[in-house]
Amino acid sequence: MKLLVVGSVALDSIITPFGEATDALGGSAVYFSVAASLLTGVRVVGVVGDDYPMARLNEIGARGIDLTGVEKAAGESFRWKGKYAFDLASRETLETRLGVFANFRPRIPPAFAETPFVFLGNIHPDLQLGVLDQMRSPRLVACDTMNFWIESARDRFLEVLKRVDLLIVNDEEIGDWNVHRAARWVMDRGPRRVVVKRGEHGALLAETGRSFFCPAYPMEEVFDPTGAGDSFAGGFLGYLARTGDLSSEGLRRAMVYGSAMGSFAVSSFSIGGFEGVSPAVLQQRVRSFKDLTHFDVAELVA
Amino acid sequence: MKLLVVGSVALDSIITPFGEATDALGGSAVYFSVAASLLTGVRVVGVVGDDYPMARLNEIGARGIDLTGVEKAAGESFRWKGKYAFDLASRETLETRLGVFANFRPRIPPAFAETPFVFLGNIHPDLQLGVLDQMRSPRLVACDTMNFWIESARDRFLEVLKRVDLLIVNDEEIGDWNVHRAARWVMDRGPRRVVVKRGEHGALLAETGRSFFCPAYPMEEVFDPTGAGDSFAGGFLGYLARTGDLSSEGLRRAMVYGSAMGSFAVSSFSIGGFEGVSPAVLQQRVRSFKDLTHFDVAELVA
Repeated sequence: MKLLVVGSVALDSIITPFGEATDALGGSAVYFSVAASLLTGVRVVGVVGDDYPMARLNEIGARGIDLTGVEKAAGESFRWKGKYAFDLASRETLETRLGVFANFRPRIPPAFAETPFVFLGNIHPDLQLGVLDQMRSPRLVACDTMNFWIESARDRFLEVLKRVDLLIVNDEEIGDWNVHRAARWVMDRGPRRVVVKRGEHGALLAETGRSFFCPAYPMEEVFDPTGAGDSFAGGFLGYLARTGDLSSEGLRRAMVYGSAMGSFAVSSFSIGGFEGVSPAVLQQRVRSFKDLTHFDVAELVA
Repeated sequence: MKLLVVGSVALDSIITPFGEATDALGGSAVYFSVAASLLTGVRVVGVVGDDYPMARLNEIGARGIDLTGVEKAAGESFRWKGKYAFDLASRETLETRLGVFANFRPRIPPAFAETPFVFLGNIHPDLQLGVLDQMRSPRLVACDTMNFWIESARDRFLEVLKRVDLLIVNDEEIGDWNVHRAARWVMDRGPRRVVVKRGEHGALLAETGRSFFCPAYPMEEVFDPTGAGDSFAGGFLGYLARTGDLSSEGLRRAMVYGSAMGSFAVSSFSIGGFEGVSPAVLQQRVRSFKDLTHFDVAELVA
């Protein structure tokens, strides 16, 4: 297996204008791995409490997801409860109970140490560094983060930046209202590439001297935005791990696979949007992004 | 000349984090025509007060803009004063003095009546209908509007929709937080195509069964966003008027010309961003959008 993800395995309770879900499978590592598993084998490192519905979690194992790195700890699982506004663009956190996730110290099983592609979910920079210390020369490391870590653990975050190839981050978390300037700031501190996720406004890939933009898939109805960004990251890294193509053109394609995964994720609660999504359905969605964005430049004749 | 615009000719006073401008040339018809004039001859219908700096306005006439339809009325010119927040994404109107624009009743000079491409700026739907009554079978009519008219003059707005080919509107003005659903609502009521402008998030072209998305040009510094949308419309319709190509592919190219014009407009106060922009510079900017958005789809090999 080529791809490792370290992140949260949670139970989400979600209220949208269209309905409610209680204790649904959630967390960044769950969304990420379900999306990535359409493209490559995935190894998950995380923690759950002794109340976690393991039968439901193990169902995703059938997708080619290795869950042996998901530790079971005594105590409650990580629970998040949130409510989306009528336009689905903003959400309110009603409750966060970290449970066993508060003491999460990622342990990479020896069999996972040589995984070539690594995604560090949004956890404390110290933990991200701890994961990297346990890996043996990965080919590509990508990480997520949030404004809270950038501010409260700045030195450690800067240390992470020196050791990763790629930062994948939400535009609201990047600390500058101009995403292009923010991306350059990051690239001056380590990563050669930055992906900025902008929700319904798409995603940006910044490289030195070059940018690529992929819009969100046009949808008249979005059911539940939870997990869209993590699904994007799973599609993006899943594609890179599958193809091994780290060229600029390969990364552009990976952006489109990520965007396609985001569009599946938001069509239902939890990971329900991936039901019935085969590699052929995925390819069809990816092709539709070409029709959404491509044009020909003609000469300007008088 | 192939393109006619009816809209405001104003004096803008603008405060941005980078500086201030007082009584600068502004208004939708000014931005629109300056952008469009890079691609085709433009006729302007509007009104100014007897205090308008005509020498400065006449300077833009040298660009191939026919200003003989700009009426001079006794009284004050339309003045708008606004202040942008530090992120340039939101602005506060400090003062609006409609002056002679309050009694604007567009009169189309007989020599303009056969102009094939028509853009109706954001004015009362009754005035937009009055313009259409004065035109002789234009080939394409596009109009702008705002939420205020959609709500306060709904019947007349619906009448306008029946008589135009294309609506160009800001996402904030379209009355539904889902732009795709909003575009379909409009297309069910007349126009075959809808363009939704989304500021720094780009622009969407909706056609029945097909969408095209063009991102905003990546800029680390935006100087003054005023007029970006009107410049977009000028580039979009200027390209259509120049080429006469109303195919889906032609409209996509027009979207890119519009986006390029928006990027010039925001780089300086007033119409200063168009200084030094030649057709060659414009073509170069248009080509850079291809690099920003294009990718190849590869087969998924195992």
